[in-house]
Amino acid sequence: MSAPGRLRIVGLGPGGDAWITPEVSRLIANATDLVGYAPYLGRLPPKPGQTRHQTGNRVEMERARHALRLVEDGRRVVLVSSGDPGVFAMAAAVFEAIEEGEPGWRDIDVAVSPGISAMQAAAARIGAPLGHDFCAISLSDNRKPWSLVERRLAAAANADFVIALYNPASTARTGRIHDAFALLRGLKGASTPVVFARGVGREEEHIFVETLASADPGRADMSTLIIVGSSETRIVPRRSGTPFVYTPRGKAAR
Amino acid sequence: MSAPGRLRIVGLGPGGDAWITPEVSRLIANATDLVGYAPYLGRLPPKPGQTRHQTGNRVEMERARHALRLVEDGRRVVLVSSGDPGVFAMAAAVFEAIEEGEPGWRDIDVAVSPGISAMQAAAARIGAPLGHDFCAISLSDNRKPWSLVERRLAAAANADFVIALYNPASTARTGRIHDAFALLRGLKGASTPVVFARGVGREEEHIFVETLASADPGRADMSTLIIVGSSETRIVPRRSGTPFVYTPRGKAAR
Repeated sequence: MSAPGRLRIVGLGPGGDAWITPEVSRLIANATDLVGYAPYLGRLPPKPGQTRHQTGNRVEMERARHALRLVEDGRRVVLVSSGDPGVFAMAAAVFEAIEEGEPGWRDIDVAVSPGISAMQAAAARIGAPLGHDFCAISLSDNRKPWSLVERRLAAAANADFVIALYNPASTARTGRIHDAFALLRGLKGASTPVVFARGVGREEEHIFVETLASADPGRADMSTLIIVGSSETRIVPRRSGTPFVYTPRGKAAR
Repeated sequence: MSAPGRLRIVGLGPGGDAWITPEVSRLIANATDLVGYAPYLGRLPPKPGQTRHQTGNRVEMERARHALRLVEDGRRVVLVSSGDPGVFAMAAAVFEAIEEGEPGWRDIDVAVSPGISAMQAAAARIGAPLGHDFCAISLSDNRKPWSLVERRLAAAANADFVIALYNPASTARTGRIHDAFALLRGLKGASTPVVFARGVGREEEHIFVETLASADPGRADMSTLIIVGSSETRIVPRRSGTPFVYTPRGKAAR
């Protein structure tokens, strides 16, 4: 019988080594096998004796099962995500594969190691727009009806949450982001701050601030994270260029 | 004229050095002054030549202004938060102090360095409960009317978000968490998974899983983060004890 394997599901943060936690670095260093979407594995330097299993972007369940089968073979497997693996990423797919899979999979040694999620990095770059109550919503309708996305957007807008929008665009769904903005414009003030954060932490990082009225949602691409403010979110202009955007800690704070 | 100072607002994560990002560690190592709530500074080893400015818990604005005045004196100041400084923490207080303060403060060199927030650490320990659309709500009514908390809880429940509850209890407000659970029980299924994560990443860490019907909200203390599932959130029992809890990536996923 081979040594017991284990699975660690880790997040590299959205970009840049400086946001990779020491826990994640240590797990990667000690792995026999790395599994992940090719561009994420590409962020890690090759290590002799360590096997890489690169997969495409749209095969999450297959990737999860592949990782679990490697663990059954006694491997120390690290499944690599961008951002936080627990936020719109691979961790949920692994637990889904475990629940649906062989009964023995439930007792595999599996754990998640958190990472900096895109919304946190985007927020940090521009100020503190997530400083008070907020929602995170994926605009992808691959796995849920668009009507549910609309219901959640409307609820978040009506209860005056700050809203972080993940997966605002893909080649398969270019219109959804426009639908989402039309809905939000009907429910929120025209001067609501909107932050577009593209490629945060990467070389192509570009962050800009608009209002709900002025924003062109067509400028969002697959690597863009959008933050739509609450009625309390403030834009603080600066002589030096990009303003600060923050959400006060409460209604009575000012 | 003294050298230009700067302010960095950093998060240590909820506990444990293994979640402190290299960026945060580097900023702390290069600081002339550390400012923060005493227990957070207590997590960092003393460094010769580095000045510490410890403050109480309820003086965020005063602490923020103190940090900004140190920067005016040319100091390299790091303001230390637990978790992520951008999520229910010090970053919003600093930008509020800047907006309200002297005009020159807007052009101070200030930046935020993100950290692992309590909800991410709690989620990682138990599986992937934040795997799909979620809200984060602070139950503190120090700075907002309780009616707004109720409105947000109801909206989040009705739109079937996963809900992370910050600041569920304090000595000043022992009843609010019971009010919140009563409201959620009226709107969500009795079998909805609820995760209580106390002291995540710290020695006293204790995480347990209940349902909305079985949960005793009185077990939440000041260091507890609560995650209330959506209708899709699953509890996966394991022979080895604590179950996994996860939220599938979409309605159609199973």
